[in-house]
Amino acid sequence: MKFALFNDFQLGVVIEDNVYEIGALMADGKPAHSCPMVDLIHRYEHVKETIAKHVLNMPSHSLADVRLRHPVSRPGKIVAAPVNYLAHKKEMKVENTARGLGFFLKANTSLIGPEDPIVLPESKEGRRFDHELELAFVIGKTAKNVKAEQAYDYIFGYTGLNDVTLRPDEQNEEERCLRKSFDTFTPMGPWIVTPEDIKDPQQLDMVLTVNGEERQKVNGKDMICGIAELVELFSHVMTLEPGDIIATGTPDGVAPIKQGDVITISIDQIGSFSNPVVSESVKGEMRHDG
Amino acid sequence: MKFALFNDFQLGVVIEDNVYEIGALMADGKPAHSCPMVDLIHRYEHVKETIAKHVLNMPSHSLADVRLRHPVSRPGKIVAAPVNYLAHKKEMKVENTARGLGFFLKANTSLIGPEDPIVLPESKEGRRFDHELELAFVIGKTAKNVKAEQAYDYIFGYTGLNDVTLRPDEQNEEERCLRKSFDTFTPMGPWIVTPEDIKDPQQLDMVLTVNGEERQKVNGKDMICGIAELVELFSHVMTLEPGDIIATGTPDGVAPIKQGDVITISIDQIGSFSNPVVSESVKGEMRHDG
Repeated sequence: MKFALFNDFQLGVVIEDNVYEIGALMADGKPAHSCPMVDLIHRYEHVKETIAKHVLNMPSHSLADVRLRHPVSRPGKIVAAPVNYLAHKKEMKVENTARGLGFFLKANTSLIGPEDPIVLPESKEGRRFDHELELAFVIGKTAKNVKAEQAYDYIFGYTGLNDVTLRPDEQNEEERCLRKSFDTFTPMGPWIVTPEDIKDPQQLDMVLTVNGEERQKVNGKDMICGIAELVELFSHVMTLEPGDIIATGTPDGVAPIKQGDVITISIDQIGSFSNPVVSESVKGEMRHDG
Repeated sequence: MKFALFNDFQLGVVIEDNVYEIGALMADGKPAHSCPMVDLIHRYEHVKETIAKHVLNMPSHSLADVRLRHPVSRPGKIVAAPVNYLAHKKEMKVENTARGLGFFLKANTSLIGPEDPIVLPESKEGRRFDHELELAFVIGKTAKNVKAEQAYDYIFGYTGLNDVTLRPDEQNEEERCLRKSFDTFTPMGPWIVTPEDIKDPQQLDMVLTVNGEERQKVNGKDMICGIAELVELFSHVMTLEPGDIIATGTPDGVAPIKQGDVITISIDQIGSFSNPVVSESVKGEMRHDG
């Protein structure tokens, strides 16, 4: 099943070209979380049969008529694997990989939806910003000290993510967290696909294009730490909670983005989405003019 | 005023040696956030007069009879300044400071209360873990692109924080986020003190002791980036939200902690708290024996 948030973060199920609004199918009582998707994940075992049975009777909209939002509005954390493909390790000229480095965190305020603009900050004008194509997954159950063999039991579903990054240079060496946490630097979507609709989540073809031109292309089987190993590695450090987002690392081909570009991410069996790139200074002028 | 969370994360006001339970003074309706402290912060302008007027009529408990909890149960983010005192820069033998590095993030699942044990993870046995004394503050209003001159308008209050850290060594160079995000690695408390009860938040004496022996001592006036500059720096990268925790960096004197130690943080005009240190392997054996 494909779960989405749309318009004012209403909860929906996507079937073909329509989104069905399923908020009314949630159990009564106090929501477990202010994000409707995290609330769904907490209740999922109890409501999934109800959803499957009634979804086609719910109010629906054409996907073309709604604004898709990031499918988790405020996760507890966004955990990301650095250097998790050998070809990317080579292009970055680094020694270590995710297996030794572990993870970094991105601020959850950096999330945007699959149609929203990536805004390049005026305060860093002249610096290089890169796209980073990534498969991401969303935690379904509280996970601590989980072994790789059990890891898939803790995953709610899969989605696409662009880990937009400010590159360091000779004069500037900001912390990785800062370089990746600017508002709008984590486009995510277009929705979350649950495991029964994905043949093998470790073998998905992914591609990122800029203005239609291919920049990154990989199959997830080339990850250094696979999905299950990432769950083991991260959950041995900290408790992963329902709704936490895990980004699995980017392949080679990372390259600069600039004002006016359109970045499209497509992942087999998940879907595709496109974000325009806007420079904050230009956006500011437009707002001033308008 | 001193705001605390206690027992099952009930919201309280601390006056002398008592905590007054004020949950019933919150306005009716849906809470703005699942953390009672973040909910209070969202509603603070509307409820603060009511609280001041009625607090002494509310049910009270002796502080000795309650378990104090971390005063924000699940912040949106924990943002921390690396290298923000010159003497600490020297002891760490690094070139850059918070002004150039910006910030790192800690997982919010690492938070524990002011009486809870710091658990050293079994998976990193034999490695060095350090205490890091820090003044922290809690964001009171949504903050984006805030200038230092306005920064104090966006602060809800002040608290103490221990930024417990796994040190890298020659064989291991995990990401800073990982080294600081183990569960229990962010003791916080004992409560949040609002600005009217602090003379000058930039000039607070702080001390950290291990088993009663002084290890770190500083006055906040020695910060490289002061409180107001940190708000400016961080809010120009990302939106700071009510309840976000900002840790202002640690002074010199960071040193290893081990099973059996008791770490005490005392900050002038805020308060003090003590966390025991437990090794996970020993804790596991104790559980097994019991």
